[in-house]
Amino acid sequence: MSSQLDKIFYPKSVAVVGASSKPSTLSWELVNNMLKYGYTGKIFPVNPKADAVHSIKSYPSLMAIKDDIDLAIIMLPRDMVLQAIDDCHKKKITSVVVITAGFKEVGNEGAELEKLLVEKIKKYKIRLVGPNCMGIINTNQNIKMNAAFVLGTPIHGGIGFVSQSGALGAAVLKTVEQNDIGLAQFISIGNKADISGNVVLEYWKDNPDIKVITVYLESFGQPKKFMEITREITKTKPVIVIKSARTAAGMKAASSHTGALAGADTVVDAFLEQGGVIRVNTVDEMFDLAKAFDRSMLPKGNRLGILTNAGGPAILAVDEAEKSGLLIPEISEETKNKLREIAPKEASFNNPVDILPSADAKVYGMATSMMLEDKNIDSLMVILGPPLMYDTAEIACSICRAAKNADKNVTLVLMSQDDIIPKLRKMEAEHPPIFRFPESAARAIGEMWSYKQWQAVPTGKIKHFDVNKAKVRKILNCYKNKGEIYLPFNAVCEVLKSYELPIIDSGFAKYDVNCSVEVAKVLGYPLVLKAVGKDLIHKTEIGGVVIDIHNDEELVRSETRIIDNMAKKGIDKNKLEGFLLQPYVRGGIETIMGVFKDPKAGHLVMFGLGGVYVEVFKDVKFKLTPISDIEAKSLVRSVQSYKLFKGVRGNPPIDFEYVEENLMRLSQLVEDFPEIEEIDFNPFVFSHDREKCKILDARIKVNL
Amino acid sequence: MSSQLDKIFYPKSVAVVGASSKPSTLSWELVNNMLKYGYTGKIFPVNPKADAVHSIKSYPSLMAIKDDIDLAIIMLPRDMVLQAIDDCHKKKITSVVVITAGFKEVGNEGAELEKLLVEKIKKYKIRLVGPNCMGIINTNQNIKMNAAFVLGTPIHGGIGFVSQSGALGAAVLKTVEQNDIGLAQFISIGNKADISGNVVLEYWKDNPDIKVITVYLESFGQPKKFMEITREITKTKPVIVIKSARTAAGMKAASSHTGALAGADTVVDAFLEQGGVIRVNTVDEMFDLAKAFDRSMLPKGNRLGILTNAGGPAILAVDEAEKSGLLIPEISEETKNKLREIAPKEASFNNPVDILPSADAKVYGMATSMMLEDKNIDSLMVILGPPLMYDTAEIACSICRAAKNADKNVTLVLMSQDDIIPKLRKMEAEHPPIFRFPESAARAIGEMWSYKQWQAVPTGKIKHFDVNKAKVRKILNCYKNKGEIYLPFNAVCEVLKSYELPIIDSGFAKYDVNCSVEVAKVLGYPLVLKAVGKDLIHKTEIGGVVIDIHNDEELVRSETRIIDNMAKKGIDKNKLEGFLLQPYVRGGIETIMGVFKDPKAGHLVMFGLGGVYVEVFKDVKFKLTPISDIEAKSLVRSVQSYKLFKGVRGNPPIDFEYVEENLMRLSQLVEDFPEIEEIDFNPFVFSHDREKCKILDARIKVNL
Repeated sequence: MSSQLDKIFYPKSVAVVGASSKPSTLSWELVNNMLKYGYTGKIFPVNPKADAVHSIKSYPSLMAIKDDIDLAIIMLPRDMVLQAIDDCHKKKITSVVVITAGFKEVGNEGAELEKLLVEKIKKYKIRLVGPNCMGIINTNQNIKMNAAFVLGTPIHGGIGFVSQSGALGAAVLKTVEQNDIGLAQFISIGNKADISGNVVLEYWKDNPDIKVITVYLESFGQPKKFMEITREITKTKPVIVIKSARTAAGMKAASSHTGALAGADTVVDAFLEQGGVIRVNTVDEMFDLAKAFDRSMLPKGNRLGILTNAGGPAILAVDEAEKSGLLIPEISEETKNKLREIAPKEASFNNPVDILPSADAKVYGMATSMMLEDKNIDSLMVILGPPLMYDTAEIACSICRAAKNADKNVTLVLMSQDDIIPKLRKMEAEHPPIFRFPESAARAIGEMWSYKQWQAVPTGKIKHFDVNKAKVRKILNCYKNKGEIYLPFNAVCEVLKSYELPIIDSGFAKYDVNCSVEVAKVLGYPLVLKAVGKDLIHKTEIGGVVIDIHNDEELVRSETRIIDNMAKKGIDKNKLEGFLLQPYVRGGIETIMGVFKDPKAGHLVMFGLGGVYVEVFKDVKFKLTPISDIEAKSLVRSVQSYKLFKGVRGNPPIDFEYVEENLMRLSQLVEDFPEIEEIDFNPFVFSHDREKCKILDARIKVNL
Repeated sequence: MSSQLDKIFYPKSVAVVGASSKPSTLSWELVNNMLKYGYTGKIFPVNPKADAVHSIKSYPSLMAIKDDIDLAIIMLPRDMVLQAIDDCHKKKITSVVVITAGFKEVGNEGAELEKLLVEKIKKYKIRLVGPNCMGIINTNQNIKMNAAFVLGTPIHGGIGFVSQSGALGAAVLKTVEQNDIGLAQFISIGNKADISGNVVLEYWKDNPDIKVITVYLESFGQPKKFMEITREITKTKPVIVIKSARTAAGMKAASSHTGALAGADTVVDAFLEQGGVIRVNTVDEMFDLAKAFDRSMLPKGNRLGILTNAGGPAILAVDEAEKSGLLIPEISEETKNKLREIAPKEASFNNPVDILPSADAKVYGMATSMMLEDKNIDSLMVILGPPLMYDTAEIACSICRAAKNADKNVTLVLMSQDDIIPKLRKMEAEHPPIFRFPESAARAIGEMWSYKQWQAVPTGKIKHFDVNKAKVRKILNCYKNKGEIYLPFNAVCEVLKSYELPIIDSGFAKYDVNCSVEVAKVLGYPLVLKAVGKDLIHKTEIGGVVIDIHNDEELVRSETRIIDNMAKKGIDKNKLEGFLLQPYVRGGIETIMGVFKDPKAGHLVMFGLGGVYVEVFKDVKFKLTPISDIEAKSLVRSVQSYKLFKGVRGNPPIDFEYVEENLMRLSQLVEDFPEIEEIDFNPFVFSHDREKCKILDARIKVNL
């Protein structure tokens, strides 16, 4: 397969089927772009009506070409596409790009045609890009292929960009060229009839031309697969995804807490984060970051040095750097002394170092070298405010030369003078990433540092606990063919106990004084009393819960109180089937733990702050199952309330190891039983004492 | 005074003192810029060594000029500036800009000189811009003054920009010109020796040329004044401030909870928000917003219509719009039917309306008009992905013409094709704001809608409660000349009772069984027992608090338990001075309420979620005192926990009116007694029952 993708990105010969000799048509533009960009291979226009296209001999059909063809780009009218695929097969072409639109995206008729197209290529073992796409670009100097129909001269670099949207792809091609961003490869995947984002990502994983991967997707075909691929790729190459991508999943009306918290965006966030993907909000952010990864090395630490000729921009840089997790350390006395020899005495020799507007190209270059040698910093941001008397390009060039071959992360902020970039590129083609303002540079460095840390995280192991799987199987079998249902509470308890998930002991008592007192004898005081009834869902709201009951007398009184409360709310006494009695757990922190099954992404486990704060702060995080020990650890640490869990005001930390164990057992449970749709432990009380860590309430929804 | 500022921004004659005849010097550049931009008044270069500067007769001194001079721009070497001010006075010039640097910004010697400069202008009643600034621009067609030394041709528009940083000012001037952003006036205020940001803002308040105010400040001289001015201005004109601005305030080591939460940025956020100011993070964000305010009207509601020729960008637009508080409603059937007549049947007629890449200038123009007539939308975003066969400028022009005179907010997204703007400007000078990508457009519309809502908020009244001010005066007098101290708890209670702030009843008992039992008799059970001692600050951490004590026996046992806990923590028994007894309050929500005195901004009241969650979520907000009834209301509603306060899981809402009353009483207390430095009510328990709303713990720090 990889060789078929090689032929898509690195073809030695390309047939453009449907190449027009009429200027300004799409196919004419595409061939024009290939010629202008200097494609190193051979182009074979196929057009029965033309003798030549762009001065190149044209062929009446694919079969008429004697040479081997690596790649066919089909730009024929829609109804001729299937025939062309047959021709490709006859000509032994197995790599095809279909630019032609009018398929799935226009409705039923088109979708029907696309289905036939897919059947055909599967049969012929052809790999297909598109249909409804805008082409392929490879800037590799041995290929130089601009086989897209957007006019432009992409700058060579290390960025791979895959776009699901043609229009966005076109806009991005314009943007990167305007902003001196170096592209390695571009692919517009259109309707993804065969080659999807996942396929391209896997191909780019080991491609030496690709240093950074950027992705615009509107939908994820296989989110879990995407997570697994990116989790591997991101250990060596950064992957940046623009936020638009969604699964329709979370849109589903959710009935559990966990489900309600698993919004579409939350699920996407979860699996992107789990894959180590950097998610951005805008195209500009995506390429600000991509160019930084492409043009500079990862920082070895989070200490940032700043060199500037003006105070204002440095303040903006410091502000944003601190927000992005960077430190602005003191530079060494040695560096300060060296700087003092070249800069005026009014200069500021503390980080940010301000060498004042009088600094010329020579001083800027020397100061850059001195800062880069400082052992106290890991990254250097050089800011160049519009110099009053000097040529910006000259100073910038001097900075770039000083930064060349530096063993540190370097960024250059030109303060709105990016008009000099074309000039600078001629003077010094290999320059650090250039930013218009310091804020975006600071954010990029911060992201690079986060990414560096992610790379250092070990992969982790999936633990397997010794559980009673057979028993759960047996329980679930009792509800076969019942469809989507909640398990009764006693079944829930049995399931959880089989996986050693610490559901609190409980006893059921009919509404009958002796009955509850008998149950209390077994459980022991203090107790909690809860109303039970099929229609009594929100127990607290109807006054159906009494806590901290100390003796038989209080117990009986509590039963009466619940009946009264229900009466006040106008709830019929007959709805009450009885009472649930549970030991009353004092202290600890109420967390929420759960599972949600996304129709596309599969199961996600959730953890966060529980109790009434669930709805207010939504301080929960998700991860796709199965989760490794490392992922369980990181899940617990990623919620804001981690600070609380660690213990505030003299409290000891909760038993984190036990939290992680429970998350992994939960993960194992849903991996073993995919028919489980939702699980809610709310609250799951944790404290430092493992004996006191208990699930106080649990719900399980299955689809059997 | 206003006439002196008129002479700065609208001078009929300008003397450039120190104008050089040597090209490439700063003063040569400045005169060059004035000439090139077509200043409509008279320029008088003053230079004893030159006969002419830029072909204009030069004068040996100000006195040698016969004409009246409105404005003197001084660009002399530093040590000649004071003499020049004397000359200005002799020439009866009262409006001066000092470009010259080398004053306060370079250290002590310069600061000394600046002090003399200020003394001189105060004496002469001269108003001064600078020193160390880069000049003034006014694009009004009757003035056309570009008296700054950054090369450029500012585009005329309605934006006023005041910058404390010269370098940032210069970069911004480049940015706005590149991005087709219309400037009305620009002022670089440099060291703010006389004219500060506040002065400029007040001047611009009623200036008809200024539609939007943009501000870059690194420091606030008088934050409270700034808040008061902006609170008034923003009722008619938006003010946008870049985030860098800080007060050094919050940096101070804070000892109270309130103080710890009042970080520098929190305080700035608070008074900017209170002034209705829009705070942004980057220069790009600032001008994205400013151009939207300048070139389009405020939306009348939050319903956004989107017209596009490509799906991808529309998805990005919808995502960001929803995040920015906008709705994407269905458009009317009537509009859909009209659109069906001009667009292909494959087009999408639901909002976002996608008229496909085939849409030409005519179709785009018509569709724009149709959408603008739709009653279901308040704003229209027109997105133009790179058209395949057509000229972008032509389509854009057609859209602009259709949008002209529209009674709705309109934005145009050119998807990276901003290179056509110069062409478009010639075709249609009055065009809507243009964005490169839909995300920034959506954010701008969202901000405009928020601003529209802010404008509708009434000003509110400062309530005055009938309190016992004399008693507080008397209490504070007891601690005169003690410096910065915490009031003892009994004094705190007295102060709060004098202002009817509901501190819980309490009694003090020496460590002596009979004593606490006696106190308990007065207060009644259930009780809380707290260890008291000068050095016992963190009572909970040392196990010095027992709650829910029901009878004498439990009380005595609790005393012993506290002693034991202290012993375990190695705390000497002698540190215990006795016990505080308070009624045990069940239920309600723990909030935190407090006051912090910022050295520059003055007092701020704080409110938010209390208890252990203070440190975890920092869910608190601040407002400068005195706070009006409307501000108290908005303060309570601005915290995230408002949702919790409104009642979750069947709980009734807390008594909001009473929360607001307490905030206003607190505000009155610190307004009456500025010597109060910090107040902490933590927790202040609120419930729906006013009788049960109690301050459970309080601290007051004063500086007497």
